[in-house]
Amino acid sequence: MKLASYTYKHKFGETRIGAIHGDRIIDLQEAHRQFLLSRNEEMDAILLPSNPTAFYRLGHTGIRRAQTAYTYAVEHQVASTEVERFGVKLELPVPNPGKIICIGTNYADHVKEMKSTIPEHPVLFAKFANALIGPEDSIEKSSATEKLDYEVELAVVIGKRAKKVARKEADQYIAGYTIANDISARDLQKRTPQWLQGKTLDRSTPIGPWIVTVDEIQDPGKLGVKSYINGEQRQSSNTSELIFDVPYLVSFLSELMTLEPGDIILTGTPHGVGFAMDPPTFLKAGDRVTMEIEGIGMMENYVIDQDA
Amino acid sequence: MKLASYTYKHKFGETRIGAIHGDRIIDLQEAHRQFLLSRNEEMDAILLPSNPTAFYRLGHTGIRRAQTAYTYAVEHQVASTEVERFGVKLELPVPNPGKIICIGTNYADHVKEMKSTIPEHPVLFAKFANALIGPEDSIEKSSATEKLDYEVELAVVIGKRAKKVARKEADQYIAGYTIANDISARDLQKRTPQWLQGKTLDRSTPIGPWIVTVDEIQDPGKLGVKSYINGEQRQSSNTSELIFDVPYLVSFLSELMTLEPGDIILTGTPHGVGFAMDPPTFLKAGDRVTMEIEGIGMMENYVIDQDA
Repeated sequence: MKLASYTYKHKFGETRIGAIHGDRIIDLQEAHRQFLLSRNEEMDAILLPSNPTAFYRLGHTGIRRAQTAYTYAVEHQVASTEVERFGVKLELPVPNPGKIICIGTNYADHVKEMKSTIPEHPVLFAKFANALIGPEDSIEKSSATEKLDYEVELAVVIGKRAKKVARKEADQYIAGYTIANDISARDLQKRTPQWLQGKTLDRSTPIGPWIVTVDEIQDPGKLGVKSYINGEQRQSSNTSELIFDVPYLVSFLSELMTLEPGDIILTGTPHGVGFAMDPPTFLKAGDRVTMEIEGIGMMENYVIDQDA
Repeated sequence: MKLASYTYKHKFGETRIGAIHGDRIIDLQEAHRQFLLSRNEEMDAILLPSNPTAFYRLGHTGIRRAQTAYTYAVEHQVASTEVERFGVKLELPVPNPGKIICIGTNYADHVKEMKSTIPEHPVLFAKFANALIGPEDSIEKSSATEKLDYEVELAVVIGKRAKKVARKEADQYIAGYTIANDISARDLQKRTPQWLQGKTLDRSTPIGPWIVTVDEIQDPGKLGVKSYINGEQRQSSNTSELIFDVPYLVSFLSELMTLEPGDIILTGTPHGVGFAMDPPTFLKAGDRVTMEIEGIGMMENYVIDQDA
């Protein structure tokens, strides 16, 4: 199932949780309501929330209900649950994650191009939610930076509270996977020893286009990862090249802090960033930035000047 | 006004926002309700929220209403608004801040003891909300660290959305000040180049005991800052020693990211941390950790083993 957050393009209204179904979206709350109606079940206590934040807070319980609802709606072609894709905008899948945990220097070839060293332990840094935008939003270039750079990354969304989780059980704590573009202002990132200030500029970091649930990704350690600027390929690697793989990261992080449903882990980027090109090449207004991860899909955002 | 979050000790119930008044707490929602009743005013739309998160989200509007309500309750000695201190527990003042922004190496003498260098720009790093505890909670020592250390810091709570704010207008965007103990696991902090993993262990970082509103602190750049372990003084400095002062930090941060009401800025710690002692001395279960900042008050927490 591909879980998406959406709003109607030409109406006011809340952001709702849906599932991608070809050129349509199945609204999951309505699908769940129709499913319960079909069974004459009591609805009050077990309605699926329409709000994505509330939905992800339910963790696997919500996802299981969504799966049932989605299957029912598709099998019975329930018209009231279907929304045309062209009439909606896809939004940030998890609107307000409690934690955005980023892993640095996690592909050996990227470590080399950044003139860094292979880490003994995962390198952690943060973004705040102000930085996040949805898959159909524009990347805003702040006037505070002249060196805005892209980084394609596999992102993991937590589906169940995780504390001291073993590596081999890690997938039980994952809701699904999505694409993140860990936009980095290299000048700000590198002017002090801590990277945070270059990583959390307002409305810089697209995530999406949707969350592919964990059951649909056979092995998160075998996914092609690519990025393109204005159609020109810049990064091309595979998550098999991760120094610390997804199960290791979930286990490692859960030893340090309790992970909660909706928390997002950005697993790091491979080589090919603009900073390491000769000469270094950075993003500017008008650039088309495309990220692609096998089994998830594609996300494309344009760069605009923030204060234009 | 000293704004505190509190719960009743021997009852279930929500965390409520109050103001410290000697050995009592004035419940601000009730005080505001009584104030409106006394004027026969319509109440539906302008009730003060009882929930601290909702209260701080209102920013200065909430604080102004609270000030009116507090003054009314105290002047008229309205019994229904008063709660005895001994019957309540003080909780984390801002329960779930959107951002916890920490400033590193911001006192010259601490820079020296950490064998670091005076920064040209503020050094920023993050904590996540999982790390925070209230002023009457215990500091939990995770088994993931053997080098848990204290850091007394002046903390700034944002009161109004701030974007590109000038230094001389910064105080208009501040709700108030409180004390933070930026607990740091030195072994985890220093095993990779990024500090985050040593800074955000579950339930490690006390903040409190209350927020002193901005009108009561004449100059945040002239406050004595002290810490004690088991009664022995370890840190003693003054915010006049800050390399980047409070107005500079608010302005600097607001150039990079939009600050929102309830966001917290930890302004850095002076010299005297356990890591720099000879021999280095770290926190252990049973230790009593006392933080004191002039014009704010004192906060005292005990250390316990997390898994005991």
